[in-house]
Amino acid sequence: MSRALELAQRGPSHGPNPRVGCVLLARDGSIVGEGWHRGAGTAHAEVAALADARERGADPHGATAVVTLEPCNHTGRTGPCSQALLDAGVTRVVVSVEDPNPAAAGGVARLRAGGVDVVTGLDVEHGRAVLRTWLAAVGRGRPFVTLKLATSLDGRVAAADGTSRWITSEVARRHAHELRAQVDAIAVGTTTALVDDPSLTARNAAGELHEHQPLRVVVGLRDLPAGGRLHGPGGELLHLRTHDPAAVLAELHAREVRHVLVEGGATLAAAFLRARLVDEVHAYVAPVLLGSGAPAVADLGVTTIGDALRLTPTSVLPLGPDVLVVATPRHEELH
Amino acid sequence: MSRALELAQRGPSHGPNPRVGCVLLARDGSIVGEGWHRGAGTAHAEVAALADARERGADPHGATAVVTLEPCNHTGRTGPCSQALLDAGVTRVVVSVEDPNPAAAGGVARLRAGGVDVVTGLDVEHGRAVLRTWLAAVGRGRPFVTLKLATSLDGRVAAADGTSRWITSEVARRHAHELRAQVDAIAVGTTTALVDDPSLTARNAAGELHEHQPLRVVVGLRDLPAGGRLHGPGGELLHLRTHDPAAVLAELHAREVRHVLVEGGATLAAAFLRARLVDEVHAYVAPVLLGSGAPAVADLGVTTIGDALRLTPTSVLPLGPDVLVVATPRHEELH
Repeated sequence: MSRALELAQRGPSHGPNPRVGCVLLARDGSIVGEGWHRGAGTAHAEVAALADARERGADPHGATAVVTLEPCNHTGRTGPCSQALLDAGVTRVVVSVEDPNPAAAGGVARLRAGGVDVVTGLDVEHGRAVLRTWLAAVGRGRPFVTLKLATSLDGRVAAADGTSRWITSEVARRHAHELRAQVDAIAVGTTTALVDDPSLTARNAAGELHEHQPLRVVVGLRDLPAGGRLHGPGGELLHLRTHDPAAVLAELHAREVRHVLVEGGATLAAAFLRARLVDEVHAYVAPVLLGSGAPAVADLGVTTIGDALRLTPTSVLPLGPDVLVVATPRHEELH
Repeated sequence: MSRALELAQRGPSHGPNPRVGCVLLARDGSIVGEGWHRGAGTAHAEVAALADARERGADPHGATAVVTLEPCNHTGRTGPCSQALLDAGVTRVVVSVEDPNPAAAGGVARLRAGGVDVVTGLDVEHGRAVLRTWLAAVGRGRPFVTLKLATSLDGRVAAADGTSRWITSEVARRHAHELRAQVDAIAVGTTTALVDDPSLTARNAAGELHEHQPLRVVVGLRDLPAGGRLHGPGGELLHLRTHDPAAVLAELHAREVRHVLVEGGATLAAAFLRARLVDEVHAYVAPVLLGSGAPAVADLGVTTIGDALRLTPTSVLPLGPDVLVVATPRHEELH
């Protein structure tokens, strides 16, 4: 399974489909085929592993398939994997995570009905970690939401005149671009779009665009300027004329967005936080003091300290002079 | 020297005098005496080491004294150490750091004049680290200033209604109390004194007062209330009716304060930062979002991002759920 999980992580972390890996083992335990899912529209991991076995001249008949996610049971862009495994004569299937997606689940039942010996739950903690944002998105029926903040030590995201380039270091900004390259969409409010003129692209250290560019989402009622970097090279531009974070997520879910990065400004961040629609906060804190200027987060309706929005940190990562604190809002623990 | 530096650190880090350690070596390299300075009014390290040698029945005649700071040459609360070493017949003295204090320096010259072989600068980096705040204070003629901030991820130190207990965790607060036990004075503004009713004491994990209590300093023009925790058990209370940080430090320097911890609020923090009188910032950042409430630092006169006050972090320490960022304002690098 650890090899299958390794293979799974070769797939893209963005896209509507989960990252899945599959290893085919002969009766003597030797590996006869390996496969992973390379993104929507391409072969699923199981089908890729069967093809790999055939290319190697191996017969998967009687083999064991070790797969990180329950084989699908539906015909989408590709056929059902459970049937492909049955057709190939696989006699045993070992699964890490069961599929929470009602449209795709049922693969285990179909395999068992076909006489295959199926074991589930192997190395499930690691399996779930690889599928973390996808599982949350499919389970909740809305994208996983990461809120990014990039602030001074005193919680400012811009100086009094609105300038904000750069509060955080190049190391931290590069790290943030890596995250952009992993998500399906980036969302900002209209004020940020108008004031900062952001490109909302994922770039590498050399400033070149990554192959994958996230959907660019601007939330708010005001018109966007005709010019501006948002119209330049990058992902598709989507303007959602609403102030309701739930409506934003419903529209993105309909577009099969599994992971959205909310990048600001303070009003959009506060709207998502107040609606309890933030799954994770990435706070880049720079050793800078401003004393005035735009705050990271607008009014949350918190008037007294007991009502503060508390988060549980999952990691603290020094990045050059800055620190990245990754934390989960406590209300998420109730889910 | 590493043993002498170890001994030095047994002394208190607060108090007007430096932490000094001394080792006496016989001609064969064996240790015949050890001493360290236990605080103002007690024997200096060299005298303590000579006394230790005598107690052990050893004759320091012809010995080598390894001492972390240049032996003093003045009569203060105790006599000059350089003379004590000469009188004892020590023939070689190895020093790490030379004394920057003009009132006490000259020990090396006096020893050399007395025919003693003196070497200085041994392990000087480590020696300076042990004496860090004291060297800065004596060199600049004013206390070393540590600014403490304890903020939410969005830079707030209190909720909208003024409540602030507790933003940071117990682990972080305990850490902050350890620092209080190491400084000579804690300063707050009158607003903080009036709104928070702080005790400004150093307490251990059990809530009991440390043996050493820092001087409690309140800065500002308004009268302090007759009651309140500031009048309870703890260090001496000093009300300085000024808004000028330089005047505060001059008064504290006259009282032989070497290290002052500025604990807030936002106005006092900003006054010290604007005057460039902060040597080090200790920022405790808690994974909490408030969205409104008192900011950590008041207006710094920074209007555009290029004028931001940038700091160089020297350490990033996770403390329970919180993070402590220790950083030095960049202007300090020019000193």
